[in-house]
Amino acid sequence: MARVLTPRAEDFPRWYQDLIAKAQMADNGPVRGTMVIRPAAYAIWERMQAAMDARIKEAEAQNAYFPLFIPESYLSREAQHVEGFSPELAVVTHAGGKELAEPIVVRPTSETIFGEFMAKWIDSYRDLPLLLNQWANVVRWELRPRTFLRTTEFLWQEGHTAHATEADARDYARRILHSVYEDFMVNLLAIPVVPGRKTKGERFAGATNTMTLEAMMGDGKALQMGTSHELGQNFAKAFDITYTSQAGTVEHAWTTSWGSTTRMIGGLIMVHGDDSGLRLPPLLAPIQAQIMVVKAGEGVTEAAVKLRDELKAAGVRVKLDDRADIPFGRRAVDAELQGIPVRIEVGPRDLAAGNAVVARRIDGTKSPVALADVVTEVTGALKTDQQRLLDSALALRQERTVDVETLGDAIEAAQTGWARVPWSAVGTDGEAEANGKAVTVRCLIRPDGSVPESDEEPGVLAILARAY
Amino acid sequence: MARVLTPRAEDFPRWYQDLIAKAQMADNGPVRGTMVIRPAAYAIWERMQAAMDARIKEAEAQNAYFPLFIPESYLSREAQHVEGFSPELAVVTHAGGKELAEPIVVRPTSETIFGEFMAKWIDSYRDLPLLLNQWANVVRWELRPRTFLRTTEFLWQEGHTAHATEADARDYARRILHSVYEDFMVNLLAIPVVPGRKTKGERFAGATNTMTLEAMMGDGKALQMGTSHELGQNFAKAFDITYTSQAGTVEHAWTTSWGSTTRMIGGLIMVHGDDSGLRLPPLLAPIQAQIMVVKAGEGVTEAAVKLRDELKAAGVRVKLDDRADIPFGRRAVDAELQGIPVRIEVGPRDLAAGNAVVARRIDGTKSPVALADVVTEVTGALKTDQQRLLDSALALRQERTVDVETLGDAIEAAQTGWARVPWSAVGTDGEAEANGKAVTVRCLIRPDGSVPESDEEPGVLAILARAY
Repeated sequence: MARVLTPRAEDFPRWYQDLIAKAQMADNGPVRGTMVIRPAAYAIWERMQAAMDARIKEAEAQNAYFPLFIPESYLSREAQHVEGFSPELAVVTHAGGKELAEPIVVRPTSETIFGEFMAKWIDSYRDLPLLLNQWANVVRWELRPRTFLRTTEFLWQEGHTAHATEADARDYARRILHSVYEDFMVNLLAIPVVPGRKTKGERFAGATNTMTLEAMMGDGKALQMGTSHELGQNFAKAFDITYTSQAGTVEHAWTTSWGSTTRMIGGLIMVHGDDSGLRLPPLLAPIQAQIMVVKAGEGVTEAAVKLRDELKAAGVRVKLDDRADIPFGRRAVDAELQGIPVRIEVGPRDLAAGNAVVARRIDGTKSPVALADVVTEVTGALKTDQQRLLDSALALRQERTVDVETLGDAIEAAQTGWARVPWSAVGTDGEAEANGKAVTVRCLIRPDGSVPESDEEPGVLAILARAY
Repeated sequence: MARVLTPRAEDFPRWYQDLIAKAQMADNGPVRGTMVIRPAAYAIWERMQAAMDARIKEAEAQNAYFPLFIPESYLSREAQHVEGFSPELAVVTHAGGKELAEPIVVRPTSETIFGEFMAKWIDSYRDLPLLLNQWANVVRWELRPRTFLRTTEFLWQEGHTAHATEADARDYARRILHSVYEDFMVNLLAIPVVPGRKTKGERFAGATNTMTLEAMMGDGKALQMGTSHELGQNFAKAFDITYTSQAGTVEHAWTTSWGSTTRMIGGLIMVHGDDSGLRLPPLLAPIQAQIMVVKAGEGVTEAAVKLRDELKAAGVRVKLDDRADIPFGRRAVDAELQGIPVRIEVGPRDLAAGNAVVARRIDGTKSPVALADVVTEVTGALKTDQQRLLDSALALRQERTVDVETLGDAIEAAQTGWARVPWSAVGTDGEAEANGKAVTVRCLIRPDGSVPESDEEPGVLAILARAY
């Protein structure tokens, strides 16, 4: 078969861009760093949104929508926050044909404007916790844009919550980390993420604690797939988010924020993609099975339609491709590029023997299956292949993660994968040294894999890697 | 009962703003004309989106996402378009800490950027029709903002399609008008809209034909609930959207665009609201039935939970309000403000008689219902009251619409409702005269209610009204 993409082993970043173009997932927008998300990728995002949104609602947060435009003065109220975001801001200075008295910032994130309204809405302890989320676009001016991974505008959900106590805020930030993000990423995306704690140097601007979910990409690098922050009372003090306690005293609330973005689409490609294109986890795939009329012939379309209806009735998201006027090879290549988990090929020859051919995207295997068994075969394949993708990503991560004892060994190991090293052997100085070599501390974890309560806990391990 | 809102008869605009505030639907944002959509209203928007999106997909359009930022130069390529939108633009001049070489416009609508990419993606007639839609935020600088109705930023869906022929484009614009918008508005929102044709003076900037759906508000004014435009070859020529025909010639495509916005929430309030608050059509309502523990007592919570579970099992969107520590009256007022179609009140006294009280929001009736009959009673009420809301809105419109023969009579009738008058008695000069008196031609219709193919068709009627 002709080579469709630059092979991953030859040039991973180019393979990534090739795949996005050939699978018609996205185009670069006219303004530097922006992207057009094409239907093939947007359908994936819609399924991500639906699955995440259900989990967010399960965590009792309510959706709302806050304005895109934030007065520039809001950003300045939290010192670390404005310092972190200033270099990335897009600023509206003219509107309605006039110069504005105060410049307006296009939201890079919405802690400040949520803070302003939380202060208005919260009166007493009865109003807490206040659990909000929004699905929105945000803008951060990117100097080195890369489709899905770092774009000037991206789509995301951002949760913002206020709580009566530090413990409540801490528990909620962890609940989101595990029961929303980790559960979604592992079980829907089939990506084995590592939840961990960011070092002080890697924290969100304004947070007292940033937790992350790190995934290993196909080239051994790391990608941050989502974050959940404890903001302490920093924003509550800056925006005067107070409540009257049961005892009648006025107290500052404790807030959290947490986000996940269209960057996850990039992660999905780099974790599951192969040299033929994307491989979509069946539970996520907008189209799980594509029935393909190989070529016209007696009873072929009828058989294909019947299979389509049977699969649909069995709850499979199925599409019929009966464009017999387009060469079958080209259509098969497209289906592989798009990562459709299962193809069912219906042609005159197989049909004469009472069969269709079931092709599995995960490993390219093809086998003839009696028409009466297609539904069972396909539903079985979808279930099995979801698990196999997760297993395979986990196996790669285990293979490419090494335990070392020194900073030097960690930096070396990070050239091809992840290094797990005692944080006491790295420390803030070691972190700076690693950063100078394009290696970062992705997160801190406990030896049992759980998330540490502080950087200083004895025995804490650091994961070092190169990252996107 | 204490007066909760300014009565509609006393001051309709103030009633509207009161309702939005008291029902916690929205707040004004800090930047002039922007709004914060609070969870109570956002939940309505989510249900609108889901119902519309299903119809849009049924019409074979695919969702995508295009950038928020558009180079200023794009707008200028279609002369009428730039002229129409220039006064409303918000312009980014600085980003990433620097002044930009070319100013960037925050999208007021996306015909131009869709046009740019349609030109890249369309090659031959095989690529047509290209049917795209996006859910997004847009910005139009508003001088006289009003929550939901005219806001500087609003949420919407905008469809953009390209077709091989003028007839294909015309048919598709009409298909969207009727099978997406009209069907959704009538059957979900219970709003009897009038589909019609805009006059030349009221057309979208750049369109060759704008079709609209007009609804009568509770005060007799009109609101444009959605629009569907034929753009002719205007954008195809400006952005060079061409295709190779089956005959091998290179042709310009014909495009359409169509949109509906968060303004529909304002329409919903003004059509169905009464002096106690919003009344939500049951099919739309995020919460269809609220079970309320009137006050604590033996077996009360258990009975309420049992009813909740039974209603849930019957497919009703139900919420249990067991906050017995908050006065029942206050909670009932809140449920009425929010427009929840049915309340089921469970208290010790009724329970002793084996009953709960079912209260219907539509008319405030309350009746004791045996516990075993509650599910049947509620599901029946939801079905009936959906229809009753539609009937009642239709009755109001019929009552307040008068048929007249002259422009003068039409302008007078438009002070309290709608006037239906032969378009030949108005014309472009008459339209200008009416506009000078704050009355507009909402749309042109045929005597049988269908949408005219041109302004010049004999017998065409104009609907004149004051409008939001």
